[in-house]
Amino acid sequence: MSTEPNVIYVGNKPPMNYVMAVITGFNMGNTTEVTLKARGRAISTAVDVAEIVRNRFFKDTKVHAISIGTEQITPREGGNPRNVSTMEITLKKE
Amino acid sequence: MSTEPNVIYVGNKPPMNYVMAVITGFNMGNTTEVTLKARGRAISTAVDVAEIVRNRFFKDTKVHAISIGTEQITPREGGNPRNVSTMEITLKKE
Repeated sequence: MSTEPNVIYVGNKPPMNYVMAVITGFNMGNTTEVTLKARGRAISTAVDVAEIVRNRFFKDTKVHAISIGTEQITPREGGNPRNVSTMEITLKKE
Repeated sequence: MSTEPNVIYVGNKPPMNYVMAVITGFNMGNTTEVTLKARGRAISTAVDVAEIVRNRFFKDTKVHAISIGTEQITPREGGNPRNVSTMEITLKKE
């Protein structure tokens, strides 16, 4: 689990797992913002998560910000570092 | 090929195919903007394309706008329509 508040790292699990995490984040009380972070193939899943939250669960949620970037990853088994795309989506509840 | 000017539909081909299309779009002359559109799994590829263009080819290119959405797709073979996530990334050359 993340130590940053309200940041959800999206990986290779089914989207609904992360949707539940977003719902929990919003219901925890004081927050109106949740940020989804994803890399590589999981970027599509992060978009799915944001859309499912907006369309099915919290219809008052807006996409507050989206940014993309690149990170260098050094493979654990050694070898040349390779670039991987990253994405952050911040959802805000009105 | 698309009929809209400066719109590139990103699908399942390798990212470099679409990078070439973006470069061609920018080099065609009058335009400073190119929009990438993608659905479903191709969303990650669209982000890769934008990042490759920005980091390797046109370093004066900025991400001008990113938006996400949902489309309903009815399968060609019939059956229930299903939702698919969409993404648009507009790149602007300064």
